[in-house]
Amino acid sequence: MIIIMKPGASDAQVKHVIERIEAAGLKTHVSRGDELTLIGCIGDEAKVERLNWSATPGVERAERITKPWKIASRQMHPAASVVDVQGVKIGGGRLTFLAGPCTVEGREMILKGAQVVKENGGQILRGGAFKPRTSPYDFQGLGEEGLKLLSEAGKKYGLPTVTEVRTLAHVPKACEHCDMLQIGARNMQNYDLLREVGQARKPVLLKRGFAATIKELLLAAEYILSAGNTQVVLCERGIRTYETATRFTFDVSAIPVLKEQTHLPVIFDPSHAAGKASLVPPLARAGVAAGADGLIVEVHHNPEEALCDGDQAILPKVFKALVVELKAIHGIIKQRSV
Amino acid sequence: MIIIMKPGASDAQVKHVIERIEAAGLKTHVSRGDELTLIGCIGDEAKVERLNWSATPGVERAERITKPWKIASRQMHPAASVVDVQGVKIGGGRLTFLAGPCTVEGREMILKGAQVVKENGGQILRGGAFKPRTSPYDFQGLGEEGLKLLSEAGKKYGLPTVTEVRTLAHVPKACEHCDMLQIGARNMQNYDLLREVGQARKPVLLKRGFAATIKELLLAAEYILSAGNTQVVLCERGIRTYETATRFTFDVSAIPVLKEQTHLPVIFDPSHAAGKASLVPPLARAGVAAGADGLIVEVHHNPEEALCDGDQAILPKVFKALVVELKAIHGIIKQRSV
Amino acid sequence: MIIIMKPGASDAQVKHVIERIEAAGLKTHVSRGDELTLIGCIGDEAKVERLNWSATPGVERAERITKPWKIASRQMHPAASVVDVQGVKIGGGRLTFLAGPCTVEGREMILKGAQVVKENGGQILRGGAFKPRTSPYDFQGLGEEGLKLLSEAGKKYGLPTVTEVRTLAHVPKACEHCDMLQIGARNMQNYDLLREVGQARKPVLLKRGFAATIKELLLAAEYILSAGNTQVVLCERGIRTYETATRFTFDVSAIPVLKEQTHLPVIFDPSHAAGKASLVPPLARAGVAAGADGLIVEVHHNPEEALCDGDQAILPKVFKALVVELKAIHGIIKQRSV
Amino acid sequence: MIIIMKPGASDAQVKHVIERIEAAGLKTHVSRGDELTLIGCIGDEAKVERLNWSATPGVERAERITKPWKIASRQMHPAASVVDVQGVKIGGGRLTFLAGPCTVEGREMILKGAQVVKENGGQILRGGAFKPRTSPYDFQGLGEEGLKLLSEAGKKYGLPTVTEVRTLAHVPKACEHCDMLQIGARNMQNYDLLREVGQARKPVLLKRGFAATIKELLLAAEYILSAGNTQVVLCERGIRTYETATRFTFDVSAIPVLKEQTHLPVIFDPSHAAGKASLVPPLARAGVAAGADGLIVEVHHNPEEALCDGDQAILPKVFKALVVELKAIHGIIKQRSV
Repeated sequence: MIIIMKPGASDAQVKHVIERIEAAGLKTHVSRGDELTLIGCIGDEAKVERLNWSATPGVERAERITKPWKIASRQMHPAASVVDVQGVKIGGGRLTFLAGPCTVEGREMILKGAQVVKENGGQILRGGAFKPRTSPYDFQGLGEEGLKLLSEAGKKYGLPTVTEVRTLAHVPKACEHCDMLQIGARNMQNYDLLREVGQARKPVLLKRGFAATIKELLLAAEYILSAGNTQVVLCERGIRTYETATRFTFDVSAIPVLKEQTHLPVIFDPSHAAGKASLVPPLARAGVAAGADGLIVEVHHNPEEALCDGDQAILPKVFKALVVELKAIHGIIKQRSV
Repeated sequence: MIIIMKPGASDAQVKHVIERIEAAGLKTHVSRGDELTLIGCIGDEAKVERLNWSATPGVERAERITKPWKIASRQMHPAASVVDVQGVKIGGGRLTFLAGPCTVEGREMILKGAQVVKENGGQILRGGAFKPRTSPYDFQGLGEEGLKLLSEAGKKYGLPTVTEVRTLAHVPKACEHCDMLQIGARNMQNYDLLREVGQARKPVLLKRGFAATIKELLLAAEYILSAGNTQVVLCERGIRTYETATRFTFDVSAIPVLKEQTHLPVIFDPSHAAGKASLVPPLARAGVAAGADGLIVEVHHNPEEALCDGDQAILPKVFKALVVELKAIHGIIKQRSV
Repeated sequence: MIIIMKPGASDAQVKHVIERIEAAGLKTHVSRGDELTLIGCIGDEAKVERLNWSATPGVERAERITKPWKIASRQMHPAASVVDVQGVKIGGGRLTFLAGPCTVEGREMILKGAQVVKENGGQILRGGAFKPRTSPYDFQGLGEEGLKLLSEAGKKYGLPTVTEVRTLAHVPKACEHCDMLQIGARNMQNYDLLREVGQARKPVLLKRGFAATIKELLLAAEYILSAGNTQVVLCERGIRTYETATRFTFDVSAIPVLKEQTHLPVIFDPSHAAGKASLVPPLARAGVAAGADGLIVEVHHNPEEALCDGDQAILPKVFKALVVELKAIHGIIKQRSV
Repeated sequence: MIIIMKPGASDAQVKHVIERIEAAGLKTHVSRGDELTLIGCIGDEAKVERLNWSATPGVERAERITKPWKIASRQMHPAASVVDVQGVKIGGGRLTFLAGPCTVEGREMILKGAQVVKENGGQILRGGAFKPRTSPYDFQGLGEEGLKLLSEAGKKYGLPTVTEVRTLAHVPKACEHCDMLQIGARNMQNYDLLREVGQARKPVLLKRGFAATIKELLLAAEYILSAGNTQVVLCERGIRTYETATRFTFDVSAIPVLKEQTHLPVIFDPSHAAGKASLVPPLARAGVAAGADGLIVEVHHNPEEALCDGDQAILPKVFKALVVELKAIHGIIKQRSV
């Protein structure tokens, strides 16, 4: 922490700041220039960060220097983490494909969906049972029945399953039927839900909120990790910007930035970023080329009739061709020297 | 709904679109120009909006024409709604002051805070017991004990109370002790929580998510309204933009836009928008001048020692002077002719 | 400047950083903690800011501490500046009204426009002759002929005039005919144009770019000031965000932030921010209440037939009522104590 | 164009709208539903777009249906355009490398830079002589002397050259010495400059403004094209968002969106998007994988001592390895089937 005093701050104000820092158990280092006085804090920054510095007389601002996430930090844990979803691994140099329909719409449909995923190279089956919908008048998913159908389909085709949980009561149900819990973008800062999945014994797929900074995503992961669950996969899925040509702006840079900052696996979701099927293949290629550990993509055998988000679902044949291409790109990336 | 066909769409594609619309029970109106064919849908748009139009062959895009919120719409309910919080009214031409500390820190502190609010013109007492914090390592509030203290302080000074609920289990507790339930910005799209407060018999203060559009805020209100609770107050509190001089960008335009679109009362929170005490008075003046029905502001007798968000809390004497000024501005606004 | 070294930076790397700083003529102050080493620079920050710190081995990042604008800074010039446009003053506690049509469309029209402005309380007449248009196929203004008509109208009604210059060649022409030069939002970072108006002997109205930070606006002003022209008025006019309910998002907070940072007068443009006439009055009230020194507003006697931006022009009768109200609000603001 | 009337619009208002459309020479098509009346315009939309619809009584809003750019549109020109820069082609399935230092700093330096580019696979040499700098106190480039040095270096190593022009007077000078004119992000909407390069007989590299929509970029290209210059290459270089982990947010989706909308070649600039050398290789891979026709990248043999933007310059050895990898990725992309 560095406390930057206002130009013209008095000696008494500087002294008061030093006293507050020392009272919190840190040491200080004062640097006086002609224009400015800076006060460095040596010790645990967390203890002084919350001291309302801009409300303290004479203080211009305070800057935190170390990162506020600890368990998620690559600095503390240089080796890449690998998350194991019932035998399917994510991270550590692999490229993992999570795929399936947006929503479980019925038994026949999800069985067909699972078959498509399995036959074309997918490794984990996705399908929503508890859907977060912007309008209260839209289809909200099949609920627990959907989880059972997803599980049946996954088992039939040997695919572990991932599904979104929206509220605390969904967690035990999803744990009973599925293999990985997804926290959706709208719930990235639902801290009670983060703590709940932090206590579950299932891997977690944590999607970035669409207005969340990378720092906030890592702090959301820290909620889960600090509750005891180390099996966390991060997912970039597009952020909200002024550009309306795509549903969200796919922040492809977040992938290498996250790989620098954290040891957790990083995947991405080109379907929600694009919001339009024709853009999914180029965005999928971009994300793999940027160094992601995998991707989660919506596939539907009849997008026109999908009950949710059909506009962004790709056809099985597109998925099939894409898997082949993405593996080839990943092969080049794996051998990168810079 | 208007379906805009791609240039060169075939007759078969146009026919297929018409069939899909008519199968949903609507009538169509086809307009063929030299360059483009448009298909208007006459009837309930909600039935055709979800038909995945961009996944339908030959379709360029589809545009919804009517607003997807119904109960919140001013068109359906031209008169301004008034929300009653234990006798304190919000809406209908009044200017209502909600004030207090960010967080209930202890008994003595909240009693002092309530006294400050009461003596200086505040009408509803705010105080957080369940705090949503970006970092898991920050102070998270006193929980139910905090609610009891808030209630005691409110009763002693004759002030109804408002407090944030973060998860379903908080709702009955807050209903027991407090008079108004707040949904925070991070939970604006926590749909389970919206439905839960929609079933509560308490007024709700719904804050805009910091990356939510005005349309999404109205749809979030619609979740509460459609669950049966008509006592909803909307609150603008700053949105996330590229500008970092303020914590968030106070979207003052949202106030008149919302007043045009909905009959619900609209207040604002200058404290969270600014993130800095010196900016709270000018933003408070701006929001009142823009036509808000009230504001919620953080006041603390010793911001430097606040356990949460002290940087943006104003001092009691500042609050006192501000209330007088804001009432004067509101007096002018009330008589506006344009 | 503070140089923050990477965790684990070597002694040689720290030494190299110190040498680079000292070679630029500054002194250093090294602070070593358990986790981190910080190196403070004492002296003229500008000399070390450009040293490509993140390209320097062992450096995590560098933070500038002082503000990079000097002449614009309130710190160096605490008293508010007053800009004089042919006798009409902006700044120093006044509220000044600049008004008129978006574009000079013809002689009769601008004469009528000037009359409307004069009779209803406007003090400076605006009117575009060189219009920046997003599409090459839109009306681009009358050019120099427009300047002459604007000047004639201003003289007839005793109103100084302001007009936009888009490129260097416009500057002498505008100086010949008009009293104040406007730099539009799209040209806020057109540095050659800034330097050119910096050498002109006319006051300048500098509009904030719609994606410019407040810091960049002040640096743009610094270009003009450092070229020798001290008559600069800043103008907030809405920034680009994800919200589409308004044409731009009026960043009302920029007004008090700028008033803290600079001595230059600050006005605003509610017309371009809103993009819609019905929102102009509430935004105008908000900006005046936030402490602005004036506003520039589009008024047209027949908006439906305007050749440019008619959607946001208010009618003369609306302008008339608004002037009265804004003066009343300004009367309250002037006496503010907080 | 579709005119959407307000609910409750009167017959007289509908009639007035129809008259205005017909007066502009278009036909109308009226569609009356229970809730709404829509009026479609058949004919040239450009003629009715500028009619200030929201200022017209009874009108809710107007929606343009066709794209306002004509020459740039892929619909009018389905085949990909190829731009020829002194024998080096951009577009049409190739991957073209533009590289070099941010700024020409001196003779020896640019000769060395050109050698690095040539030996490692670069095809066009970049180097700035007229630099747009946010602060007036930063190095602004060598001016015409820089152009001569750039030209000399290009000729010595057989590399065509590209350089930025910032104002009209730069255009003839750059045309005399260089082979391609660059319009920088800050000047994307400097319409006088766009028209001037539209009249030049040199290819133009048009960078996207950092707050420009894709639509605005295409309209800026249309300014150049409609002035007679068909040799235009578009360049995505990062947009401004709330995320501060990167200097700008690289909008990789813009590449496939532009490829759908226009026949012009599309390249990208990973250096300015990232603002940090370590992120340049992953972003370069992402952009090529997304389907770009080339990239422009900053390379410097000693970034620490660069006079401008050294933080984002990659070393020659990194550039060399990257060229090999990017060609391999491009090889896969070229054979894509979806």
